[in-house]
Amino acid sequence: MATVAGVDIGGTNISVALVDDEHQVGDRHKRSTPTDGPDAVLEVVAELLGELDEEPAAVGVGMPGPVDDGVVSHPPNLQNWPEPVDVGGRLSEAVAMPVAVGNDANVGVLGEWVAGAGRGSKFLLGVWMGTGVGGGLVLDGRPYTGSVGGAGEFGHMIVHAGGAQCGCGRRGCIEAYGGRANMERAAERAAAGGFPTTLFEIRDDKGKDRLTSSVWDRALDQGDKLAVRLFNEAVEAVAIGIASVINLLDVDRIVLGGGLAEKLGDDLAEQVEEAARPHVFLPSAKRQIVLAELEDDAGMVGAAALGRAAMLLG
Amino acid sequence: MATVAGVDIGGTNISVALVDDEHQVGDRHKRSTPTDGPDAVLEVVAELLGELDEEPAAVGVGMPGPVDDGVVSHPPNLQNWPEPVDVGGRLSEAVAMPVAVGNDANVGVLGEWVAGAGRGSKFLLGVWMGTGVGGGLVLDGRPYTGSVGGAGEFGHMIVHAGGAQCGCGRRGCIEAYGGRANMERAAERAAAGGFPTTLFEIRDDKGKDRLTSSVWDRALDQGDKLAVRLFNEAVEAVAIGIASVINLLDVDRIVLGGGLAEKLGDDLAEQVEEAARPHVFLPSAKRQIVLAELEDDAGMVGAAALGRAAMLLG
Repeated sequence: MATVAGVDIGGTNISVALVDDEHQVGDRHKRSTPTDGPDAVLEVVAELLGELDEEPAAVGVGMPGPVDDGVVSHPPNLQNWPEPVDVGGRLSEAVAMPVAVGNDANVGVLGEWVAGAGRGSKFLLGVWMGTGVGGGLVLDGRPYTGSVGGAGEFGHMIVHAGGAQCGCGRRGCIEAYGGRANMERAAERAAAGGFPTTLFEIRDDKGKDRLTSSVWDRALDQGDKLAVRLFNEAVEAVAIGIASVINLLDVDRIVLGGGLAEKLGDDLAEQVEEAARPHVFLPSAKRQIVLAELEDDAGMVGAAALGRAAMLLG
Repeated sequence: MATVAGVDIGGTNISVALVDDEHQVGDRHKRSTPTDGPDAVLEVVAELLGELDEEPAAVGVGMPGPVDDGVVSHPPNLQNWPEPVDVGGRLSEAVAMPVAVGNDANVGVLGEWVAGAGRGSKFLLGVWMGTGVGGGLVLDGRPYTGSVGGAGEFGHMIVHAGGAQCGCGRRGCIEAYGGRANMERAAERAAAGGFPTTLFEIRDDKGKDRLTSSVWDRALDQGDKLAVRLFNEAVEAVAIGIASVINLLDVDRIVLGGGLAEKLGDDLAEQVEEAARPHVFLPSAKRQIVLAELEDDAGMVGAAALGRAAMLLG
């Protein structure tokens, strides 16, 4: 009946919450992510844990980067983090309680699995559509992280070999079409080439400096042709990737989450399902593509579940 | 210390062997696969088991088709098999011993894992390059077959969306480029279009009616331009698929087997490794792409391992 703390470390904010053994979120605190490296990040986490109105029995942490046995290497959205850092070991020493660390995409899928749209599935793929395209897996009823903790890079599976350039430097990966950062670059190129679009006016109207999910949402609502074209390419790339994963892994549930998925709602799951169908080798009536349910809480709930599991396993 | 029988049911032959607990193959028997349906196939298997010079403690069977809990549906290369058949249940009754049934590609990977080039890996992808392109997985130290036994269709992951037509009816899957049947169709089209090639002369010289692996091998040795081009496309498609699997699953070993891989030897592993490298998201020095070791015995050895595991688990 222990309460566990879930920590979600993002490029912008660090969020900490108490999560009970029914995966309900209690007291929560949030602060901006320091930009001056691991020491400052760990200090803020320890402070936020200290502000909780109850002492947790364990801590789980989701980190935006590759995690192998508690060690976090080169998190692309955390600044001044040049060397691998043993986040698990250092935080556990600082707060004197058991700490488990996972990659944020994997941890988010874990959250949806224990308490959201993935409940009850033993073969689950989670896909996060945001600035990039992330993923995570539960296979044979267990969270799956691979041989050195690098599993889940769904966004960097290749669906159009030799195709569009991705921010990762490669070509033709799913994220080259389905990630918001790459979609924005494609929109800029098309607009510079004279393709008419309201995307950038909507961005300015909303006072944003980027094509956020809400900008895409409004442009799609208005039937903006460029937005529709790029969005359809995104859906197609994600759907083909999902079909490839179904063919390889025979998963029975796919949960779609992330900012873009949240904004676009139920339609997205249907569109992806329809676009995936022609590429699926072995159809199954039991297989479902559904939207995530926990929104921003998925990370903290999943991190807490990871911390709880680590505590129970000793 | 029990001896187990491994049964490898293919479209052409049924092979049965005794396999000891160190995965060594003993007495073996082989017969043509009957074309008149499941009853005849099961009868031949029972007869072959009866011919073994020792009574096995259990039986494992590899089947060329989807297997879910012993039930085999629509094996594409077995004739007159219109309905799903409970091969496990029926065979177990007929021979009065424990029987476990798996898909042939998965079972072959299991063989390489317990006794061949996959030994010691806990995160293994096996790729079979033959008439088609098959696959199998060991994940987190356990054979992986998916939610309804349909996992491992590596050959039907999509690498060139909208690309070449595959025999499966879809476009752009790995098998469309890397499977011998599709390579032969592409060679026929190119030859009909006037592309010069010695592939069909070599086929006739060898007295074959198909472009077998040995025909490709000789044409490549002679530097036949069409053979080289189609082979490079095959290597590229397989390599991109392997990179996608590495990115999704963080496997640490990839075993390449099947007729085409056996014929082309060590070069193939290096060529695939080189073609995969630019598409891999998280490089790892520990990751290896290697050739299979057991050749045709992989199926029987893997089937026996499956039978042994089923016996031990009750």
